[in-house]
Amino acid sequence: MHENLGNQMHNICNELFPICRSITGDGFRQSLDILRKHMPNLKINEVPTGTKCFDWEVPKEWNIREAYIIAPNGKKICDFKQSNLHVLGYSTPINKLVTLDELQKHLHSLPDQPDAIPYITSYYKERWGFCIAEKERNKLKPGDYKVYIDSELKVGHLTYGEAIIQGKSDKEIFISTYLCHPSMANNELSGPVVTTFIAKWLTRLRDRRYTYRIIIIPETIGSITYLSRNYKEMKKNVVAGFNISCIGDERAYSYLPSRHGNTLSDKVAKHVLKHTHPDYISYSFLDRGSDERQYCSPGIDLPVCSIMRTKYGCYPEYHTSLDDMKLVTPIGLNGGYEVLVKTIKCLEQDEILCTTVFCEPQLGRRGLYPTISTKASSLQVKDMMNFLAYCDGNLSNIDIAEKINVFLLDIEDIVHSLKEEGILKPVK
Amino acid sequence: MHENLGNQMHNICNELFPICRSITGDGFRQSLDILRKHMPNLKINEVPTGTKCFDWEVPKEWNIREAYIIAPNGKKICDFKQSNLHVLGYSTPINKLVTLDELQKHLHSLPDQPDAIPYITSYYKERWGFCIAEKERNKLKPGDYKVYIDSELKVGHLTYGEAIIQGKSDKEIFISTYLCHPSMANNELSGPVVTTFIAKWLTRLRDRRYTYRIIIIPETIGSITYLSRNYKEMKKNVVAGFNISCIGDERAYSYLPSRHGNTLSDKVAKHVLKHTHPDYISYSFLDRGSDERQYCSPGIDLPVCSIMRTKYGCYPEYHTSLDDMKLVTPIGLNGGYEVLVKTIKCLEQDEILCTTVFCEPQLGRRGLYPTISTKASSLQVKDMMNFLAYCDGNLSNIDIAEKINVFLLDIEDIVHSLKEEGILKPVK
Amino acid sequence: MHENLGNQMHNICNELFPICRSITGDGFRQSLDILRKHMPNLKINEVPTGTKCFDWEVPKEWNIREAYIIAPNGKKICDFKQSNLHVLGYSTPINKLVTLDELQKHLHSLPDQPDAIPYITSYYKERWGFCIAEKERNKLKPGDYKVYIDSELKVGHLTYGEAIIQGKSDKEIFISTYLCHPSMANNELSGPVVTTFIAKWLTRLRDRRYTYRIIIIPETIGSITYLSRNYKEMKKNVVAGFNISCIGDERAYSYLPSRHGNTLSDKVAKHVLKHTHPDYISYSFLDRGSDERQYCSPGIDLPVCSIMRTKYGCYPEYHTSLDDMKLVTPIGLNGGYEVLVKTIKCLEQDEILCTTVFCEPQLGRRGLYPTISTKASSLQVKDMMNFLAYCDGNLSNIDIAEKINVFLLDIEDIVHSLKEEGILKPVK
Repeated sequence: MHENLGNQMHNICNELFPICRSITGDGFRQSLDILRKHMPNLKINEVPTGTKCFDWEVPKEWNIREAYIIAPNGKKICDFKQSNLHVLGYSTPINKLVTLDELQKHLHSLPDQPDAIPYITSYYKERWGFCIAEKERNKLKPGDYKVYIDSELKVGHLTYGEAIIQGKSDKEIFISTYLCHPSMANNELSGPVVTTFIAKWLTRLRDRRYTYRIIIIPETIGSITYLSRNYKEMKKNVVAGFNISCIGDERAYSYLPSRHGNTLSDKVAKHVLKHTHPDYISYSFLDRGSDERQYCSPGIDLPVCSIMRTKYGCYPEYHTSLDDMKLVTPIGLNGGYEVLVKTIKCLEQDEILCTTVFCEPQLGRRGLYPTISTKASSLQVKDMMNFLAYCDGNLSNIDIAEKINVFLLDIEDIVHSLKEEGILKPVK
Repeated sequence: MHENLGNQMHNICNELFPICRSITGDGFRQSLDILRKHMPNLKINEVPTGTKCFDWEVPKEWNIREAYIIAPNGKKICDFKQSNLHVLGYSTPINKLVTLDELQKHLHSLPDQPDAIPYITSYYKERWGFCIAEKERNKLKPGDYKVYIDSELKVGHLTYGEAIIQGKSDKEIFISTYLCHPSMANNELSGPVVTTFIAKWLTRLRDRRYTYRIIIIPETIGSITYLSRNYKEMKKNVVAGFNISCIGDERAYSYLPSRHGNTLSDKVAKHVLKHTHPDYISYSFLDRGSDERQYCSPGIDLPVCSIMRTKYGCYPEYHTSLDDMKLVTPIGLNGGYEVLVKTIKCLEQDEILCTTVFCEPQLGRRGLYPTISTKASSLQVKDMMNFLAYCDGNLSNIDIAEKINVFLLDIEDIVHSLKEEGILKPVK
Repeated sequence: MHENLGNQMHNICNELFPICRSITGDGFRQSLDILRKHMPNLKINEVPTGTKCFDWEVPKEWNIREAYIIAPNGKKICDFKQSNLHVLGYSTPINKLVTLDELQKHLHSLPDQPDAIPYITSYYKERWGFCIAEKERNKLKPGDYKVYIDSELKVGHLTYGEAIIQGKSDKEIFISTYLCHPSMANNELSGPVVTTFIAKWLTRLRDRRYTYRIIIIPETIGSITYLSRNYKEMKKNVVAGFNISCIGDERAYSYLPSRHGNTLSDKVAKHVLKHTHPDYISYSFLDRGSDERQYCSPGIDLPVCSIMRTKYGCYPEYHTSLDDMKLVTPIGLNGGYEVLVKTIKCLEQDEILCTTVFCEPQLGRRGLYPTISTKASSLQVKDMMNFLAYCDGNLSNIDIAEKINVFLLDIEDIVHSLKEEGILKPVK
C-alpha cells in the first residue's frame, strides 16, 4: 500500500512540475487546484495587493505568458517554455534589443555549477532578468540580443489554501508548507504534495484528539500574511506545528528545531527520528531558512520545528534546475510521509497517565505477567514494568518512552492493555 | 576488628544457609530468630493470609517437610534434603507415579549452566515442580518416576521483622532487606546479615541524629504489605533509604538509583562510593529488580536507592545453586558493611552550616591557619578554606564536599573545629 | 597607539618596582602617589590601626629603613638595599649577634629554586627573618652573624585608593586591584598599573552607562577593610566586578570564576575570552587565591571574577625575586589591558532589546537586506537575522551573541543600525 502511496505522490509532483509558480499569480492558483482534487476540504483564500501584514504588505500579483532571448544568430535561448527557471522571478516586462554587454547585467548563472540554471527572484524591487547555465552563457557572442518578457505586475491578490480538520479538542496541530517555487522538485513540490497526503490520512483518522490546521502558502510573505490574520487564535490553540519542506529525496532525514528547541514539536520530532532513523541530521535553529523564521519569531513564538529529508541549502541541486523529478522519488516521498504519520500518531497518543494503585499492580492475575519466576524477564514485560514505574502523573507518554528507551509506537498495545485493565488512567 | 566482623557475618550466613526459606512459612521465622540473637530490638510481625495490601493480598502460608523423586532404577534424585532449591518454591503436595514425559513438564533446568540447580518459584499460581541440574536431567531414562512433595499451602501468616532505633529527630533513615530466598548466599543471605550488623552498630552509635527504621521482609509481597501498613508515616518521616541486597561477594561495588536519581539517598551513595570505590558500577533505575520497585513506585515515592556489591542478575551464579558460601566471603561482607557504615556516617554529618562572620575568618589567631605565608598552602588548609567558602546556608555538607572534591569523612575534624570555634553554625 | 600604551604602562611598573611596599606603610603611600599622577580622581583613604573589620582588625603600620646581615667574614649579605625581598615582610626590628644555627631558624629559601629569593611575610605574628637564595644560604659558614633590621611596627594606618567614575546609572562595575607586594612585577605591579590605565580610559568613555568603582588596596586585609565599610552599598549596586591581578606577562590568558560561576561578570569574561583568546585557561573557584576570596564569600556574594594573564601560583617565578620586569612586558600589559577594555565595552552594550514588529521585519526597503535572492546569504546578513530572531525581550545582547556564535563587539554596528531603524528597542 505504501509503495503505492509513494507512486501516487510522485505522479502529482510530475503533474505540478511544469507549472510556473511564484508567490502570487495564476500558477499558484492552478497548482492549488490540482492539490485540492486530493484534499477537498482545502479552502482557497485571496488577499488583496497592498494589504498590510505586520511590517510587510502584499505585493502586486505577477503573471507571465512568454519569455525568451533571440541571439544575434537568430537562435532562441533562455526560453521560458523550455524551463520557467530561465526568467528571474517577478521580472518586469521587456521587449528590446540590447548589446551583449547590456544583457550580461541581467543574466544570472552559477560559475561553480556550469550545467545548472539558477533559481533567482526579485520580489520587492522591480527589475528584469534571465537565468542561464554558465556553460551556455560562456558561448554568447557579441551582437544585438532581443530580450522579450511578456509578464505583468498588477494589483491583484496573494492566494493560499487552508484546511481545518476538526478533532475532539480545539487544541491544534499546525502544518505549513509552501507552493511558490517554480519547476523544482525537492524544494519545493515534495512539501505540498506530502502535506496533501497527510491531510488525506488525517481525515480518515478515527477519534482524532487534536484539530489540524493545514496551510499551503507562498513562502515568507505567505506565512507573514497568514500570521497577521490568525496569530492570536494560533497562539491560543496550537500545541505543536511543523513546517513541511524538502521531504522527497532519499538521501537523509533531518530535523531543525524551534527557536529554543524545547517545544512539544521538538520533543516528538526527536523521539520519532531517533527511533525510526537514528542517523538523522540535527540542525541548529541558526541554519533555518524557511517559514519557521516567521512562526518562531519573537512575539509569535509558535511551537514549530521542521522534519525534512535533505534540507534546503544542504544539497548541490538546491535552487537550480537540477532539483528535478529524478531527485525526488516515490520511495523518498513515502519515507517522509511515514515519518510525519508516526509523528502525528505519537502526538495523538501523548497523554499524561497515572497509576490507579500504589506499588506495582498484581499483573499475574490479569494475565499480563508470567506466573512462574525466571532468571530474566522478557523485554515486553520489562518495558511494561518500566512504563508503569514512571506513570506518576507528571510525565507524558513520550517523556516516559524517552526515559525507558523505547519508541512510543512500539508499546502502544501495552499502554492500551494497562488502560483497559484500569491500572492507568489519564490525568485531567 | 573489622576482619573479625566479616568472619562473624560469614558464620551467621553459614548457619542460615541450609534453612528452606520462602515468602512465608517456618523457614522464614526460624531465620528471623537466628538474626534476632544479634539484633534484640527486632520485633516479629505476623500478617494473616488474605489481608488486602493495595492491589495484592497476603498469600497462603507454605511449609514443606520433604521432597524427592524416585527414578525407575530406584535411585532417589532431586532430594530436598540435599538442596532445598530442588523443589519449585510454593509447590503443592504431590505423591504419584508419572512417566518421564509427564515429569519433564514439571522439571526446570538451565541448558546454559548444566551444573546449576535453578531457583524457581510459583507463588501465585498453584503448581508443583522440581529444579534439577541440566546435566542430571539429561541422564534421565524413560520409565515411571515417583514424585513426592510433602508440602502444605494453608491459611496462615506472612512474617516480617522490624526494628526502630530512635534518634534525636523523628526523621528516619529506612533500611530494608529480604530473607525469603532459600539456600543462596549473595542473593540473599548477605543482605539480611549485613543489615543485622548495621543495626547492631547503630544501637551503639552515640548521639544518633536520625531514627532508623529497619525491616527484614520477604521480597515484593513483603514490601507491598509493609508499605500498605506504614507508607503514610514513612512518606512523612523518611529522608533517605536503602534496599540492602547482594552485598557479600568480592567482585564489585554497585549503585542503583531511586526512580529519579535525585534524592538524598542517591547523593550520599554516590558521594561515598566515588570516594571509597571510584570504580563502582552505576546502574540505571531501569535495571532494578528488588524492593525499590515498590519503594520508588508512583505515589509511594520514597527516597530509596541500592548500594550493592555484585548486583542480582549480573553474575552467572545468580538464582542458582552456584550462589553459595564460597561466593560470599568475610572480606566481601565486611566491604559491604563498611560502605554502608560510611554512608550512614555521612548522612548523620550532612547538615547545612553557615558562616557566622562576613569574609574569611581570621583563622591564624585561632591556630587554624599558618602565621607565615608560603608559596603553597597545605591541602588541609585548602580544604578548610574551600569548605568555608561554600558554607552559605544553602548547601549541605555533602553538597560542599562534592563541590570541593573531598570525601566528607576526610574533613570531619576540620568541620568539627570550625563549629567548635563558632565560625560555623547550623542553619535552623 | 596601543603599543605606546604598553610602553607607558611598562615604564610606570619600572618606576614602582624598587619601592618596598607592604599591606601598610609609606611604600604603599608612595606607590599610590605615583599612580595618582595618571588617575587624578583617585582618593586616598587612611584607616587607623585597631579598626575592627568583620572578624579582623587593621594591624599596626610597618615601615622599614634598612636591613642586612654581616657575615663572620665581614661581608654584608641579605641587604635590603639590593632587594627588599631579603627581609621577611613585617619583620620586627633586630640588632644582635647570632650563631649560624640561630640564624638558620630565621632564614627562608627555596631548595627547588636555588637562585630565587622567596617572598615571605608574617603580618599577624611578630617575628623577624631574612629571605635568601638557597645557593647563597648553602655558602654560609659557622660563626657569629650580625643581624640588623631597622624597622618599626607602630599604631598607624592602612592606606587605600578609591575612584568613583559616575555613569548614567548608579549601577556599578567594580574593579579591584592590590598594591601591597614589594619588588615583584606580574604579581603584583601589573594589576594596579593596568587598572590605572583602565580608569584613564573610562574617564574618557562617552555616555558611560555604568558607574565604575575602582579600588587599589592591600590584598586580603584591604578588601576585608573596604568591604566592612562599603558592602551594603556594593551589594545594592554592583552588577559585575573584576579582581585585577597578574595581567602583565605574555604567556597566557586566564579566567577564574566567581563562587558559583554564574554572574554577569563570568558571562562577559567568558564571552570576551572565548572570542579574543579561545585558548585561554579556565580555572576553578577552588584555585582562587586573591581578593575574590573576600568578594565572593558567603553573605558578601559580589559578582566578582578574575581575568588574568598567567595566574598567581601557576608560574615558576611566582612570589620570588624572579617575578621581575623581564617577565612583564609592554606587549603583555597591553594584551591584558585590551581584554579588559573589551570586557567593559561588552558590559556597556549588554542591554535587553526587543523587536518592535512581529515576524521578520522587511529589511530590504531599509537597505539592510539584498533585494535579489541568492543561494546563500552573506555572513553579515545571517548574523543580523539570527540576532533579530532572539531579541524577544528575555535575552541580553551577550546571551544572544553566545546563542548565535558571534562576538558582541563584531556586530555592534548591526545592532546600532537596527536600533536606529526602530526595529529594536530596549526593554525597560
